[in-house]
Amino acid sequence: MSEPRFHGVIPPVVTPRTADGALDLPGLGSVIEHLLAGGVHGLFVLGSSGEVAFLTDAERVSVIEESARVTAGRVPLIVGVNEMTPARVIEQVRLAEQAGADAIVATAPFYTLPSTAEIETHFRLIAGATALPLFAYDVPVRVHNKLTVDMLVRLGAEGILAGVKDSSGDDVAFRRLVNANRAAGEPLVLFTGHEVVADGALLWGAHGVVPGLGNIDPRRYVEMYEAAVDGDWARARSLQDELCALFEIVFQAQGVSGEAAGIGAFKVALARLGVISSARMSQPVAELDESTVERIHAIVDRSGLLVT
Amino acid sequence: MSEPRFHGVIPPVVTPRTADGALDLPGLGSVIEHLLAGGVHGLFVLGSSGEVAFLTDAERVSVIEESARVTAGRVPLIVGVNEMTPARVIEQVRLAEQAGADAIVATAPFYTLPSTAEIETHFRLIAGATALPLFAYDVPVRVHNKLTVDMLVRLGAEGILAGVKDSSGDDVAFRRLVNANRAAGEPLVLFTGHEVVADGALLWGAHGVVPGLGNIDPRRYVEMYEAAVDGDWARARSLQDELCALFEIVFQAQGVSGEAAGIGAFKVALARLGVISSARMSQPVAELDESTVERIHAIVDRSGLLVT
Amino acid sequence: MSEPRFHGVIPPVVTPRTADGALDLPGLGSVIEHLLAGGVHGLFVLGSSGEVAFLTDAERVSVIEESARVTAGRVPLIVGVNEMTPARVIEQVRLAEQAGADAIVATAPFYTLPSTAEIETHFRLIAGATALPLFAYDVPVRVHNKLTVDMLVRLGAEGILAGVKDSSGDDVAFRRLVNANRAAGEPLVLFTGHEVVADGALLWGAHGVVPGLGNIDPRRYVEMYEAAVDGDWARARSLQDELCALFEIVFQAQGVSGEAAGIGAFKVALARLGVISSARMSQPVAELDESTVERIHAIVDRSGLLVT
Amino acid sequence: MSEPRFHGVIPPVVTPRTADGALDLPGLGSVIEHLLAGGVHGLFVLGSSGEVAFLTDAERVSVIEESARVTAGRVPLIVGVNEMTPARVIEQVRLAEQAGADAIVATAPFYTLPSTAEIETHFRLIAGATALPLFAYDVPVRVHNKLTVDMLVRLGAEGILAGVKDSSGDDVAFRRLVNANRAAGEPLVLFTGHEVVADGALLWGAHGVVPGLGNIDPRRYVEMYEAAVDGDWARARSLQDELCALFEIVFQAQGVSGEAAGIGAFKVALARLGVISSARMSQPVAELDESTVERIHAIVDRSGLLVT
Repeated sequence: MSEPRFHGVIPPVVTPRTADGALDLPGLGSVIEHLLAGGVHGLFVLGSSGEVAFLTDAERVSVIEESARVTAGRVPLIVGVNEMTPARVIEQVRLAEQAGADAIVATAPFYTLPSTAEIETHFRLIAGATALPLFAYDVPVRVHNKLTVDMLVRLGAEGILAGVKDSSGDDVAFRRLVNANRAAGEPLVLFTGHEVVADGALLWGAHGVVPGLGNIDPRRYVEMYEAAVDGDWARARSLQDELCALFEIVFQAQGVSGEAAGIGAFKVALARLGVISSARMSQPVAELDESTVERIHAIVDRSGLLVT
Repeated sequence: MSEPRFHGVIPPVVTPRTADGALDLPGLGSVIEHLLAGGVHGLFVLGSSGEVAFLTDAERVSVIEESARVTAGRVPLIVGVNEMTPARVIEQVRLAEQAGADAIVATAPFYTLPSTAEIETHFRLIAGATALPLFAYDVPVRVHNKLTVDMLVRLGAEGILAGVKDSSGDDVAFRRLVNANRAAGEPLVLFTGHEVVADGALLWGAHGVVPGLGNIDPRRYVEMYEAAVDGDWARARSLQDELCALFEIVFQAQGVSGEAAGIGAFKVALARLGVISSARMSQPVAELDESTVERIHAIVDRSGLLVT
Repeated sequence: MSEPRFHGVIPPVVTPRTADGALDLPGLGSVIEHLLAGGVHGLFVLGSSGEVAFLTDAERVSVIEESARVTAGRVPLIVGVNEMTPARVIEQVRLAEQAGADAIVATAPFYTLPSTAEIETHFRLIAGATALPLFAYDVPVRVHNKLTVDMLVRLGAEGILAGVKDSSGDDVAFRRLVNANRAAGEPLVLFTGHEVVADGALLWGAHGVVPGLGNIDPRRYVEMYEAAVDGDWARARSLQDELCALFEIVFQAQGVSGEAAGIGAFKVALARLGVISSARMSQPVAELDESTVERIHAIVDRSGLLVT
Repeated sequence: MSEPRFHGVIPPVVTPRTADGALDLPGLGSVIEHLLAGGVHGLFVLGSSGEVAFLTDAERVSVIEESARVTAGRVPLIVGVNEMTPARVIEQVRLAEQAGADAIVATAPFYTLPSTAEIETHFRLIAGATALPLFAYDVPVRVHNKLTVDMLVRLGAEGILAGVKDSSGDDVAFRRLVNANRAAGEPLVLFTGHEVVADGALLWGAHGVVPGLGNIDPRRYVEMYEAAVDGDWARARSLQDELCALFEIVFQAQGVSGEAAGIGAFKVALARLGVISSARMSQPVAELDESTVERIHAIVDRSGLLVT
């Protein structure tokens, strides 16, 4: 397994808020130091787990600038520039460039009803507007289009795309992507966004993982990645199984939004670990109820992370 | 049928571009004069048909300002403020207020995975941030959530929502909405966004129609509306059938995006009628091929609109 | 509006069961007499509302035979032959032919993943195997494919299809179908399956309605149909609004299956009216809880049907 | 990894037809001998790959009887009993029992709109009607409901279900199922139905794989399974990668049905290998065009299977 510049464990960093709902920049710095202490290989801010959709442009700039300041080049800083269409994405790219991004991540268009050809043009237009490496974020549950293997490898081979973050939930397609990319000389670096099948993805040949759960337990993801690099798959699986047990925190809430259940649980866990001071979410996302919080606390407490 | 301030035919105004892709403000003025000459009862700019998702904030402000300037209060100006989440919508609301909007239209959150309760909070937060009347835009094909009858009527009764633009394609739910709204004292004004079933919607009790096709043939929609107000349903249906024949322009393209097929066809037709000079779409939407354009021209030519 | 052989109000007849779950053939006869007394123009047995998916072949034959015996030619008897693929549908067609069907109704294939071309072949194979008129049942919520306007009109023009029962929920497509069928010389008779927009569908040119709710209040549907034939659209709408109020029975249950909420409510209402003795559903469909049943009773009681 | 009675490689056996469309029982025997020669641990007939949806009951009985006769107890014979609802499934169970099945496989209800509770009742009713071990087949792409982890483990713990064939494409859920099953004492045997991620599934703890592609290259699947049992994950991955290259046969056809592209490719490949004499599919599935067949032949020829 060669190690390209972007590789390994690159968590999608959560965006903390204070109890009154304001952006919590010290909390963000604390999360980043927690991640770096865990040995992560990069940071991805303003992803779905970073609540990018809920932040104003001013808030987004603050997040990037503070992340760049705290990180100070220790690892690459990748920035989400999700917007509906190319013209609007490119405005986000300018903000990211000025605020200190090392690479950018964009989805297919959303709200719109694009053709396959328009999705491809979308990525070409973005790449043509910046010198930063561009990653495609494949997330059909949010944008309602799946990126195709053929298009991704073609855009990789042409130097339009540097890599892919796959959150499609479609491992059959991901396996095909890994193999087609290898046959094309490996132009793309490939990350899985799925927290609980990363051992499998690494076995298949993924270059890394972008796990929301990595906000909570970065070290164990790094250890799993290192086990995979060493070819110790039994150990990788064992570590993954421990992370699976921890990931149950996102299944505790019932009848709430995807953001409340997932990112809300991440924030509750980070608060439990003392990394941030509040689990507050962006409006209109409600906070989790007390019994859900207690179940999440119990899972975190069982994980062995709470060593004081 | 009482006539509230917002009623009748309120087309979602297309946003013309010049052949080189720039915003075509004179073309926009021309479209608006075409619509006002047709007798429309209001204008809705920056809707899906206005390619709102493809415009930068600066372009959006230009569209609103120019629309307000040209319209000069002759009819109400309703402005789309579609964005992913409340904080971002409210920024759009500020732009709309400053640029001259008389009312605003917002969808449910998108890109996110909201709960029903969060969708309701979303509308409450928007309404709480402005004095302008707020319309809910129900468009599950784009935002992937259907607004519920119960929530809409409740928000109407509380004065949060002024009305609904229904583009859900779910006439069973729309009929239930009309009846539930009536039972609640008719707090909401209700519009169908579906071009070809407006006679039915008016029969059921809709207060108006927001037809993309109204960009092309506003007068016939106005005549249909007037026939409906007069209770002349045979005439309403007959006019609707003529409009159905014209609406076939959006079914001519194959294998292209929803925007290219639909809005692209509207622009081709407006160019054929001499209202605008170019059918150019926003990037990354491709223009229609020549044979599709010819089929659209033939339909327009048969419609009787081309009186010289 | 010409009156083809199949036209008007043709309810999809529910299949009663006794309290112990057995087929209730006397109850079925009672439902049929209730419908004929209401003036319906035809009967459709073994549709979705008839729980066709839940019946064994032996039960299906019993339902057809008893329906044919009770109806005794007073109105046409249309029989659902829903199965996954042509070979299995044709076996059902044989049963229907032998048991006394006057026409048959088939969906697109389901469970399978058919192409558009295979869906068309499916209908051609069925029609080629029987002399009975064949209706296409367009029900994407169950079979997960929408029948296209082009295919339906083509199969009508070739004499493969006699008509369409549209339960697609897509009135835009239905309006296009009505107009395309008219342009082709009206080879198809067109029915809407949606209980609450039938006045609109008739205004557009539908030949009839197949309303599950017609099991409860057949007379009012017949009166609405007659008002439509007379061009008295205000009266048609008024009757439809009354039927909409009654249709609220299907929205009373929460968290249960589509069958329990809808067909379950029909059976509860029929039992309330004394037409059948039990609201029992086919396994594994549970019966509605007591508070739901009470809300349904209250709606039925307000409808004016309970004149003793 | 313990080895329960049902484990390892259990291909879903294709159902050959002669060039004129008749059931090809000698061809079926030839496929089974090919599979047994490859060392498979069981046979699954009348699955989706066996075109169960397209076969009449008489054909289904012939397939089971011939399979039982040829297999003669050398490996367990598992039989699909897919039908819409419990009453109809149980009729299929009777056929399977009489014809020689060792276990049965059933999906959730389809065509119907079941609640979660009804899906659970469905499996309870089936299990209650037979002494044969019952496997749940999780295939939302066909039945449009995903089986939940909680329900599956509960039904396993109660002895209702013997195992699960997971074709959900949702590896996150599958991983959770593996872990929840382990925590419950491993009442279920778990199979993945996805041909190209079986190495990962085995790493996670799956007991076996049900690969359609196993019809073509059973031996390599068996070798991969044995490598997994030995903990030689690099070898398992390498064999899986070879199988991935072969699996590209199902992506060669464009614009055809799922059955034509997938099962059609399997049959073309089997014919190329001389195992069957015709790639004929069940009606209304069309055969693949010549250029697609040639591309499939080229992939098969490159696979090294064609040693004569």
